[in-house]
Amino acid sequence: MPAILTRPIMSNAVRTLSRVQIRFFSSTSGLLSKKIVIVGGVAGGASAAARLRRLDENATITVFEKGPFVSFANCGLPYYVGDVIKDDKDLVLATPALFKNRYKIDVRTQNEVVKIDTKAKTVEVKDVAKNTTSTESYDALVLAPGAFPIRPPLPGIDLPGIFLLRTIPDSMQIRAWMDQYKIKRAVVVGGGFIGLETAENLVHRGIEVTIVEMGTQILPPMDPEMAEVLHEHCKAKGVNLCLGDGVAGFYKTDTGLEGRIAADVINGRSSTFRGVQGTAVCGVFDKVAASTGASEKTLKRYGIPYEKVYLHPNNHVGYYPGAKMIHFKLLYSPKDGKILGAQAIGEAGVEKRIDVVAMAIQQGMTVYDLEESELCYAPQFGAAKDPVNFAGFIASNSLRGDSPIVHWDAIIKGECDPNHVLVDVRTKEEINLGMYKGAKHIPIDEMRARMSELPKDKPIYLYCGVGLRGYNVVRMLKQNGYQAYNVPGGWKTYAYVSKCVK
Amino acid sequence: MPAILTRPIMSNAVRTLSRVQIRFFSSTSGLLSKKIVIVGGVAGGASAAARLRRLDENATITVFEKGPFVSFANCGLPYYVGDVIKDDKDLVLATPALFKNRYKIDVRTQNEVVKIDTKAKTVEVKDVAKNTTSTESYDALVLAPGAFPIRPPLPGIDLPGIFLLRTIPDSMQIRAWMDQYKIKRAVVVGGGFIGLETAENLVHRGIEVTIVEMGTQILPPMDPEMAEVLHEHCKAKGVNLCLGDGVAGFYKTDTGLEGRIAADVINGRSSTFRGVQGTAVCGVFDKVAASTGASEKTLKRYGIPYEKVYLHPNNHVGYYPGAKMIHFKLLYSPKDGKILGAQAIGEAGVEKRIDVVAMAIQQGMTVYDLEESELCYAPQFGAAKDPVNFAGFIASNSLRGDSPIVHWDAIIKGECDPNHVLVDVRTKEEINLGMYKGAKHIPIDEMRARMSELPKDKPIYLYCGVGLRGYNVVRMLKQNGYQAYNVPGGWKTYAYVSKCVK
Repeated sequence: MPAILTRPIMSNAVRTLSRVQIRFFSSTSGLLSKKIVIVGGVAGGASAAARLRRLDENATITVFEKGPFVSFANCGLPYYVGDVIKDDKDLVLATPALFKNRYKIDVRTQNEVVKIDTKAKTVEVKDVAKNTTSTESYDALVLAPGAFPIRPPLPGIDLPGIFLLRTIPDSMQIRAWMDQYKIKRAVVVGGGFIGLETAENLVHRGIEVTIVEMGTQILPPMDPEMAEVLHEHCKAKGVNLCLGDGVAGFYKTDTGLEGRIAADVINGRSSTFRGVQGTAVCGVFDKVAASTGASEKTLKRYGIPYEKVYLHPNNHVGYYPGAKMIHFKLLYSPKDGKILGAQAIGEAGVEKRIDVVAMAIQQGMTVYDLEESELCYAPQFGAAKDPVNFAGFIASNSLRGDSPIVHWDAIIKGECDPNHVLVDVRTKEEINLGMYKGAKHIPIDEMRARMSELPKDKPIYLYCGVGLRGYNVVRMLKQNGYQAYNVPGGWKTYAYVSKCVK
Repeated sequence: MPAILTRPIMSNAVRTLSRVQIRFFSSTSGLLSKKIVIVGGVAGGASAAARLRRLDENATITVFEKGPFVSFANCGLPYYVGDVIKDDKDLVLATPALFKNRYKIDVRTQNEVVKIDTKAKTVEVKDVAKNTTSTESYDALVLAPGAFPIRPPLPGIDLPGIFLLRTIPDSMQIRAWMDQYKIKRAVVVGGGFIGLETAENLVHRGIEVTIVEMGTQILPPMDPEMAEVLHEHCKAKGVNLCLGDGVAGFYKTDTGLEGRIAADVINGRSSTFRGVQGTAVCGVFDKVAASTGASEKTLKRYGIPYEKVYLHPNNHVGYYPGAKMIHFKLLYSPKDGKILGAQAIGEAGVEKRIDVVAMAIQQGMTVYDLEESELCYAPQFGAAKDPVNFAGFIASNSLRGDSPIVHWDAIIKGECDPNHVLVDVRTKEEINLGMYKGAKHIPIDEMRARMSELPKDKPIYLYCGVGLRGYNVVRMLKQNGYQAYNVPGGWKTYAYVSKCVK
């Protein structure tokens, strides 16, 4: 069976970085009107070339691209493999001819820059087709070579049936291999965004897929309990997950290849995205996962104080047909409520909420600001109080002390007051489907009559289905002199957190 | 044929206002723990009641609602009429029993507050069912009676077959009337959000619909050239539009009723929404229209300096199947680039972009900030440079002087330099479908060779298909000493603006 090595989507970072570089050039205009060499002609390089022309009509601009295509849609490759995008011509966004006619830019494909001499200001260029080498001088150099194609130096890595997915030729090779050998099973190495998209597209073509990921979860930008939603979803779609696993090499067998892998570049995207927010989205079968800003594990790693809330609102009002749940996590500063990050998984309206929080992070907004955000509402698009408003309400109510919170991971690990009393306030019907061991059951509508059963000198931790009724009971109890805390996200959050707490 | 009188969606305003009122109460806590009367039990009133309970466990809270339902989904009514929402029970969000058990709140439906004595602190309440009247005292009063049902005092207004659409009973009456008389045609009075939603739902049930609107456009929060997109769309869906028309009354005829109307409450939503952003969205058949902040006509009315850009990007990258165009208009301050408003119409991803701009407006962001916004990107959700980024690029490039702009309305009305030369830079194939009278045609890819045909002492106005090639040519010409201006939105914008310029 073939193995496909994937790499993280870089587009937004490349875009941002290339724009930063170009602005540098435009502010030092003495460099312009000269000879500019750009290394790499895909997203960042092509975009830089066009903008440089707009900034300087007279500069000599040369782009060296080692592959056969300039400005191709690298993010579309998994969907071309899956035959969702049917024609490889759709992946080619611009040709060397267009660059020449419209931008007076000399694009040389199949020309690889193999050496840079920054003292002499020259590059050594290898013409891949002719196998010749020449030297070109430059006044200014833009580096946009893209991400490295990771091909770990493992035994068997060069066997046929092991592919990278990085270029149009890569994806053509994969398509041809699948067709030629009527492939029934495949291994995708790497559980990041591209790995998941590739897995989805292979399943779409009727192939049984195993994702091998060295980390303990897929989608490294997400926190583990959020990724857990996707683990279940992938399994439900028939994808085998091999997590937390390293490999020695690739071996040829009678039936094809079996793969386990030792190196996974996709780990730790946060370092790649240093200096930017890391807003990202990924379709995973019929679910969507998106995130922006810092994850909880990143905040922990850097010792940054944070608080979090979970919620599970619908993408639009429940009374309009087709409402789908969104699993939402918001991270913020306990000091001033400044928003630090957000993650969301669901079927519709997911990336919209993450985009809204991305704007909030860009401008240093707080959870109090989210309470007041005025977003689009009609029954098929949202709710009078949007999920983002609700995240703001829950976080703000906690910071104001109106509804203090305690989390499942603290309860499960015992990292909370050992004298607490845990109360499940759901209905009898709901607890039949499961209840936390040792929790006391008092349904919300019986709480006023039965609150005397609870001690006033111990913390009372309350949970319900998703957190809303727990909040109401917290208010009820606090005003009667109890030390009440809500568990954000309720039983729904427990389902995922409980699988991740060690 | 029946006529249905519609009213604007108030939800977001009611929500905001009700929260403002409640905060007032909570900050004057001396008023709490007393007797609170709430007039109105739908969205704002119900929400206020629940929050008051969370703030004060001991207050006596009474809600008087004149209708038979508390806390119903008023925004769902058009979709119930259209049988998209099939069961009226889905529209009832909470019952008096739930308010009693969960919140200890006394909700009295079919009880209308007919008089308020603020000196004596009493309300006079009429029990609609029993036709009796009683007096209730209060310590604090919350007014959440909802919008007024507008039933203009016109001849024939009380004839059968004329309905308001405001309550569940209203919508039940309309459904019953449609079924009983096998209605084939209907008039919807008012072309605001609810009017359009009602029209769509009636068409969905196979009814021929005429929308009568006193204003010269539907959707008053939108500017006319944007509403023009929806006029065409409604006509394409078989809806008759009677715009700019007043009516004397309603007359009974042999076949039913024919309606024209003199009063339209929906005009000038901005005054209703004073103090809030006015973010709104509306489904119009398979298109979506959304807006936030101020419209151009509002800015004009108040004499606020503004600049604008138009763009027509896809909701996601064109190479991924199913991309749909979004017509986008951004309004901003020419002084500092502060964002003032935005409008968008398309089929997918519309409300997401307006939500993003709504966040930007909330925080006083500028078009320069929009350039830098980092939003979700994967092929099926957007583009590496999102439509919102592009709006920021175009506006910022104009403000920086890199790509000055001139607008179609100024060109058509002659409110621009009379000596200008207008140049169409599209291909020969494109101008075969139409070209502005008197424009000179120089395709972009011939411009470098032919720019000597243009004068350097006159303004050169450039337009293309949607504005992108025009921008490239502006850069080309400006660096060669020409006074070049781009027409944002290009020929696509012309198609709509030209129909609105008087």
